[in-house]
Amino acid sequence: MPKISERANLVQASPIRKLVPFAEAAKKKGLKVYHLNIGQPDIKTPEVAINAIKNYNEKVIEYSHSAGNESYRRKLAKYYNQLGIDIDFNNILITTGGSEAISFALLTCLNPDDEIIIPEPFYTNYNGFAMAAGVNVVPITSSIENGFALPKIEEFEKVITPKTKAIIICNPNNPTGYLYSKSELMQLRDLVKKHNIFLFADEVYREFVYDGHEHFSVMKLSGIDNNIVLFDSVSKRYSECGVRIGALITKNTEIIEAALKFAQARLSPPSLGQVVGEASLDTEKKYFDEVYDEYLERRNYIIEALNKIEGVDAPMPKGAFYSIVKLPIDDSDRFCQWILEEFSYKNETVMMAPATGFYSTKGLGKNEVRVAYVLKIEDLKKSVRIIEEALKEYPGKTN
Amino acid sequence: MPKISERANLVQASPIRKLVPFAEAAKKKGLKVYHLNIGQPDIKTPEVAINAIKNYNEKVIEYSHSAGNESYRRKLAKYYNQLGIDIDFNNILITTGGSEAISFALLTCLNPDDEIIIPEPFYTNYNGFAMAAGVNVVPITSSIENGFALPKIEEFEKVITPKTKAIIICNPNNPTGYLYSKSELMQLRDLVKKHNIFLFADEVYREFVYDGHEHFSVMKLSGIDNNIVLFDSVSKRYSECGVRIGALITKNTEIIEAALKFAQARLSPPSLGQVVGEASLDTEKKYFDEVYDEYLERRNYIIEALNKIEGVDAPMPKGAFYSIVKLPIDDSDRFCQWILEEFSYKNETVMMAPATGFYSTKGLGKNEVRVAYVLKIEDLKKSVRIIEEALKEYPGKTN
Repeated sequence: MPKISERANLVQASPIRKLVPFAEAAKKKGLKVYHLNIGQPDIKTPEVAINAIKNYNEKVIEYSHSAGNESYRRKLAKYYNQLGIDIDFNNILITTGGSEAISFALLTCLNPDDEIIIPEPFYTNYNGFAMAAGVNVVPITSSIENGFALPKIEEFEKVITPKTKAIIICNPNNPTGYLYSKSELMQLRDLVKKHNIFLFADEVYREFVYDGHEHFSVMKLSGIDNNIVLFDSVSKRYSECGVRIGALITKNTEIIEAALKFAQARLSPPSLGQVVGEASLDTEKKYFDEVYDEYLERRNYIIEALNKIEGVDAPMPKGAFYSIVKLPIDDSDRFCQWILEEFSYKNETVMMAPATGFYSTKGLGKNEVRVAYVLKIEDLKKSVRIIEEALKEYPGKTN
Repeated sequence: MPKISERANLVQASPIRKLVPFAEAAKKKGLKVYHLNIGQPDIKTPEVAINAIKNYNEKVIEYSHSAGNESYRRKLAKYYNQLGIDIDFNNILITTGGSEAISFALLTCLNPDDEIIIPEPFYTNYNGFAMAAGVNVVPITSSIENGFALPKIEEFEKVITPKTKAIIICNPNNPTGYLYSKSELMQLRDLVKKHNIFLFADEVYREFVYDGHEHFSVMKLSGIDNNIVLFDSVSKRYSECGVRIGALITKNTEIIEAALKFAQARLSPPSLGQVVGEASLDTEKKYFDEVYDEYLERRNYIIEALNKIEGVDAPMPKGAFYSIVKLPIDDSDRFCQWILEEFSYKNETVMMAPATGFYSTKGLGKNEVRVAYVLKIEDLKKSVRIIEEALKEYPGKTN
């Protein structure tokens, strides 16, 4: 039997996936499982988007342009213009989800064995894409003590080598919910300018920013147009995770041209998804207001309720719909499995993501979990109660 | 300005893409351009598939399982069972087009700097996927003299090194239209068994096999279950190129498990495309019969007509809807550009793919082009006439 590749052995299964069999077993036992683990919102997709699909009227579902339909790119450029981001459709490549935008950027900007710096905890799948591109991730640890703010620039300086080609930030952040300030982004600008490296920014949660804070896009940082690559996606903005439509956006024409060659190899992004994405740009403001109010209420509820539990520390997220929460536990992998496998409260339990999977540095995140507040308030109430009761019984509880 | 990666500079733009500006310019001049260059069929998508989209009735377009919807995989397994391929749904990963299946197989089975052998001429994009995976392509030349039959096994033996991990074949073949015989496949079986390497087979044109020949799938080769990976796609079978749904199929569970980790990183294949793909499995036999008859007529017409032109050699393809045609020309890149840029006949011209782009060995394919017979007969008639007239005037004509 021929051997599979070393990289296939090395690429980590997501820590959530490891828990799936335990969640399934819990359901088989008749337990109800609340999913605080996932980024699949329960929010309805805008009607205008669903209708576009119902009214689909082509006879042949053809390939689109490899960079995406021009009509969609032109309309999408206007969306960015309205946010004060000065681009046109030539600066946009439509991708198969935000995922593919990340892959294209890594392939285009970094050579195998080059290094990319990422503040941790970070979105686990950056690891998978880096592995596929043969790129090494260099983490810099951010801390729950200051709500996961940007680590000091000195920390970045310490790890920059001739192999460092890029930094990725996710803003607002998955998994922490942290929103980087303009001042933090200005520091990153100076850093990437000084070292002549790329700054990749994943801004797919742009619309989810609370408490009157304003999202400042990296596309507005002046003087580093050629260093910036933006990743975007319709998944969270319109609750369209399944259409697999994202975008790679940059003013660096060399990157657009080179990434297009990788895009041409895979022929085209999904045509039906582009129909949905384009129609979604006509979504009424009312939709976003309702979604915003819903998430705000959920966030306010869950963070306050979690902080009331003894030994729990849940920083108030300023954006997205996640929070990394500190729990009085020995090992988050063990706890998240235990609560599914051995615990229940009123015939119900919860699935959470152990934070260990969001850290690249071994040993970190052992007393932290990520919760996604993508469930309705009544379910969040039950979930918090289950966590509270579980902490009373969990054999690995610490103080 | 930071430098982009070397691989981004090295990955080749498809030879067709280089011609696109010339085709656009020709259209601007008022010329009609017949596209013999592309694999986008003009055949209608089955109604049952279009209707599935029109009747889409979900409120949220959610992620699917990373391996694809189980209902789709179960139904797809039955399709293979009916072809005599003994698999179940666990042997199938649904991918974003056949393209992603190829990428996953390369990432999963080969390490960076490993080698993959491919008979040339071959589907250009194998190069792009190999570049992205850091894998080196080793070509073995097949010849128009014997209709692009499998090169002798000795030729494979000559280039096998400890870094050789796999062979890819495309059967029926794009770009040559060649159908590998059972006996050729048995020779490949013995070879991969002897060297304990993988055999990847791209069988997306399975349904397009003419003259009473039978397609023999690599999945039926006995004794090498763990060496075989099959790539498939709905694009050509149902004229659904834009849905971006394919599959990676193997009985090697280690490969399925490892490829799933890469699949999990990109979350899910397109959900709407899966709705289309699943519905398409109910396509009536009548649809395939009509499509088959149409392609057969087109093939018979164009091959005969091309062979009537002096100095032209068009081997009769046994499958798919392509043919590599030898023309009395000095340089196919130059000719294909010239016919768009400087030639027209009755205000019309044609776009073809220079065969140079399908060879990995520099200098080959200079007197060959690929034609795709994806246009209706009357357009093929005009196209052949244009080629005939063009050859009379082309300054780089040879004898």
